[in-house]
Amino acid sequence: MSASELLDHYRLQACSLQWRGFILAMAAEFAEALPDADVARLMARIGERFARDHRLPVVDTLAELESAANAVWASLSWGVVTLREGSTEVRVEHLAAPLTALLAHHAGWNTSFLEGVYRVWFREAGMLPSLDLEPGQGSSADVSRYILRRVS
Amino acid sequence: MSASELLDHYRLQACSLQWRGFILAMAAEFAEALPDADVARLMARIGERFARDHRLPVVDTLAELESAANAVWASLSWGVVTLREGSTEVRVEHLAAPLTALLAHHAGWNTSFLEGVYRVWFREAGMLPSLDLEPGQGSSADVSRYILRRVS
Amino acid sequence: MSASELLDHYRLQACSLQWRGFILAMAAEFAEALPDADVARLMARIGERFARDHRLPVVDTLAELESAANAVWASLSWGVVTLREGSTEVRVEHLAAPLTALLAHHAGWNTSFLEGVYRVWFREAGMLPSLDLEPGQGSSADVSRYILRRVS
Amino acid sequence: MSASELLDHYRLQACSLQWRGFILAMAAEFAEALPDADVARLMARIGERFARDHRLPVVDTLAELESAANAVWASLSWGVVTLREGSTEVRVEHLAAPLTALLAHHAGWNTSFLEGVYRVWFREAGMLPSLDLEPGQGSSADVSRYILRRVS
Repeated sequence: MSASELLDHYRLQACSLQWRGFILAMAAEFAEALPDADVARLMARIGERFARDHRLPVVDTLAELESAANAVWASLSWGVVTLREGSTEVRVEHLAAPLTALLAHHAGWNTSFLEGVYRVWFREAGMLPSLDLEPGQGSSADVSRYILRRVS
Repeated sequence: MSASELLDHYRLQACSLQWRGFILAMAAEFAEALPDADVARLMARIGERFARDHRLPVVDTLAELESAANAVWASLSWGVVTLREGSTEVRVEHLAAPLTALLAHHAGWNTSFLEGVYRVWFREAGMLPSLDLEPGQGSSADVSRYILRRVS
Repeated sequence: MSASELLDHYRLQACSLQWRGFILAMAAEFAEALPDADVARLMARIGERFARDHRLPVVDTLAELESAANAVWASLSWGVVTLREGSTEVRVEHLAAPLTALLAHHAGWNTSFLEGVYRVWFREAGMLPSLDLEPGQGSSADVSRYILRRVS
Repeated sequence: MSASELLDHYRLQACSLQWRGFILAMAAEFAEALPDADVARLMARIGERFARDHRLPVVDTLAELESAANAVWASLSWGVVTLREGSTEVRVEHLAAPLTALLAHHAGWNTSFLEGVYRVWFREAGMLPSLDLEPGQGSSADVSRYILRRVS
């Protein structure tokens, strides 16, 4: 078995068997009933709600914010995030999120749930509204990327 | 700790921790955006889709149908169903479904997903359209009840 | 389905399907190879090791110790503990531990793992050696009981 | 994050969080108390017992045996096996077993549980005693290899 088949196997296992069928059916229903942009907005709103139900403690630095977010994700087996500060932006890279992985065939909106989560978490950490979160380049089944860009 | 607290604890654990937060946020979003009857129809359509993705083998008796359905549910840790034949109806009692339990506060539609699943499974088993599936009395967090009634 | 069957179902589901077969086979092997008292000692040593791998933060009160222990248990879906102070003893009641439940047919030692865990946690909290932990009366598949008794 | 870190993350997630701590503590206890060869024998006996508790249906071909074994493994989220027939041997390659992965630091016996399972399954399928199962070369955290060799 190749390295890629091994990764495919582990990626699928990372999503609880109990919910795979339900989530896939729900996603197919959404995809049939609504345009991609509308599903993206719906998933983002679900993410925003999730973020308000899982508030992070008040923190002072980006490193502490990353650590607080990862405490939530680790407790739920929902992957790992890294936050990297650039000169004009923060790069968000969320690895191994089960929803992103399971819905990789819905590339128009499989990263939108996490987008909503991070938007609320960054806002509540006081990093918005001078910054704006947007999808980044290069998301895949394994990685969801976002950019938190300074609004001029 | 009382027997009822014990049951509450086990009931919650029966739903994978990985998906509790997502499902609750999704349900809250639906409940805010749509009337109960519309969410019920949406959940039923998701259930119908799930049933078509998890087809049962062809069977001859109600007991075999129950057994085939339970093979699916057991493989997903999704509770247990009993099908009981009366003179003019079949009573469906699904115990310990994680979605029904987690969304017990959405009593208007927390049993609708399974309603959609059973409607398709019964139809494909050739038991419809001379029968019609409808919600039964006495559903709770622990039990989803339906009646499959002969259409006159 | 009766309330007792419902509880049986939920209790079994509380133990991850992935490990049920392995743990049952391991327990049967132990039970055949060793007297109960030896398996009890082995399980307690495994529990002591687990406790050293999952250290609790330093706390000042029994309520804080209970809360710190429950943070560990909740993160692992390993039930809930209550610590109740009496005049001469502390009563430990651990509800819904998956190992205790799954191995209820090995009543001689199915609570010994947790006994080892609590012995180390109480010792590291400075509550031993003036106190000694021993199995309490009335343990069952759902509840593991211990008494932390003042040594005269 | 590199491909290797991604794989490390998924590999760990493939083992139910509920049991990681217990299994690691149990393994450490075994490793301290017994020589590797004895732990290997113990794990193999646990595997043999597991196999007798999870009997495969009677099959006619190696492909059917592989399929029957994989039905068990899939239902338990316990990886995937391939059985490949050579001129004088059968090569067994079990991918993504959570026990093998979690105990990769116990290379002397982390594949012994599955060795016991396959020995019993091959024996009951009538493929032994003219064949003998032995550990193969090149096992790792992700792959457990065995060879079923014709006994001369």
